[in-house]
Amino acid sequence: MCAPSVIDTVRQHLSRRHFLAALGGSVAAAVAAPAPGLGQEKPVRLAKGFRDVYDLTHTLSPKLPVFTAFKPVQIRQRFTIAKDGFFANEITFDEHTGTHLDGPVHFVANGSSADRIPVDRLFAPLAVVSIEVRAAKDADATMRVDDLLAWEKRYGRLPRGAFVAMHSGWDARVGTPDRFLNRDAKGVMHAPGFSEEAASFLVKERDIVGAGVDTLSLDGGAAQKFVAHLALLGAGKYGVELLANLARVPASGATLIVGGPKHEGASGGPVRVFAVV
Amino acid sequence: MCAPSVIDTVRQHLSRRHFLAALGGSVAAAVAAPAPGLGQEKPVRLAKGFRDVYDLTHTLSPKLPVFTAFKPVQIRQRFTIAKDGFFANEITFDEHTGTHLDGPVHFVANGSSADRIPVDRLFAPLAVVSIEVRAAKDADATMRVDDLLAWEKRYGRLPRGAFVAMHSGWDARVGTPDRFLNRDAKGVMHAPGFSEEAASFLVKERDIVGAGVDTLSLDGGAAQKFVAHLALLGAGKYGVELLANLARVPASGATLIVGGPKHEGASGGPVRVFAVV
Repeated sequence: MCAPSVIDTVRQHLSRRHFLAALGGSVAAAVAAPAPGLGQEKPVRLAKGFRDVYDLTHTLSPKLPVFTAFKPVQIRQRFTIAKDGFFANEITFDEHTGTHLDGPVHFVANGSSADRIPVDRLFAPLAVVSIEVRAAKDADATMRVDDLLAWEKRYGRLPRGAFVAMHSGWDARVGTPDRFLNRDAKGVMHAPGFSEEAASFLVKERDIVGAGVDTLSLDGGAAQKFVAHLALLGAGKYGVELLANLARVPASGATLIVGGPKHEGASGGPVRVFAVV
Repeated sequence: MCAPSVIDTVRQHLSRRHFLAALGGSVAAAVAAPAPGLGQEKPVRLAKGFRDVYDLTHTLSPKLPVFTAFKPVQIRQRFTIAKDGFFANEITFDEHTGTHLDGPVHFVANGSSADRIPVDRLFAPLAVVSIEVRAAKDADATMRVDDLLAWEKRYGRLPRGAFVAMHSGWDARVGTPDRFLNRDAKGVMHAPGFSEEAASFLVKERDIVGAGVDTLSLDGGAAQKFVAHLALLGAGKYGVELLANLARVPASGATLIVGGPKHEGASGGPVRVFAVV
């Protein structure tokens, strides 16, 4: 059983259970079932007919680690029930804070803004590729082509239209921003990301809609240039950074649903991201 | 055929088509198929095996109409590719602008904040109840219990865990804020919403997760008090306001997916909302 905080328990009502089960059932039928094997996230099997929704979104708060250039989100109470009859805040954020999407235009002048990404690309077969074991020993570990091929050897070729998520284990550090940012004496961050080769392989040799990481950046923390960003966004793909709970999601067989930002001309922005199984 | 801007065309890749089709197929199986009949939004049937994703989200821009108390969203460019190597904006908004969610805490001191709504409640059978004909003649028309019962007579009892959306036709006014707000000489807005009776019926006699409108408020524009808000949010339900494209979605048989806001302590916030069929 997974922790209730991670996997939402299904509803107590029979009709609701049937509803969710049928939704999950067909998704499972659409992609290969995860094969049993070492290092694989175990699919959660609750009572017959139950399926799960995973929330891959960190709660956006000023306590979350942010990339060097950006400020933490600001949440200011403007209205109170006592004074105004209702409670409401004003929110200010740099677009690339929290669990967030990078649209092609973030790095490519003529690229698509995040609000204009075609909606069907926000629904994708999810491939979670773990480099956790290597990243635990080397904070500069990157996703390599070999890692992608090893995933394919176990689960089959990446489905067309897939979203590929790097699971590095960095999620577990999110409550301790210093460990998450992992700066050295010179202030350089050390955290995993995609190698340029792996990003290029995905856009040239496979057909993906986007790629994501559980760290702050598609590129490794110590990368001198935004090579993975440029390879992915330059090819019209989108990125999702600071993903949560990838350790819980099956490596193959889940469906990603990206509630992408839709403010006008967005370079990106906070998202609500689910995986359904 | 629906306009490409409303319904995203499915992918050209066969495997992707099969993926979306299987997702949609099971959703359709989970709830009653829409019965043919006058006034019903026609289900869109593309080639066999195709299914649709509808985007129920307005693009969040300073041009959108806003409720009296709130300011339009502010989008400020802070980083440019020429100067910084990447493009990014800073965004400021009052939580209740754009297509947005109202969490129970918006009106109820001890209610759930929007970020804590259980994830499975953000996936719901969608019932679209139209009062468009009446609203075209009377801007103060409200959703009545009779309207809900007429929907049930045609499509069957509201499924447990349903989300009930009022379609008033106000969506068509969104490009002309003056017509949308529809203020009289005294500054009072006139726009449709839920009657207190209909809201109470839904929380007491049926089992819903939330309710939505294509106007700015769950309550009618001219309502003196927030009676529909209090009935719905007071019962722990959530609201979604300024929904788009309800005219296109089947009245019964779609699944709502709400990419709800997840900033800490949110009274609500802009959402990305989809319907899948």
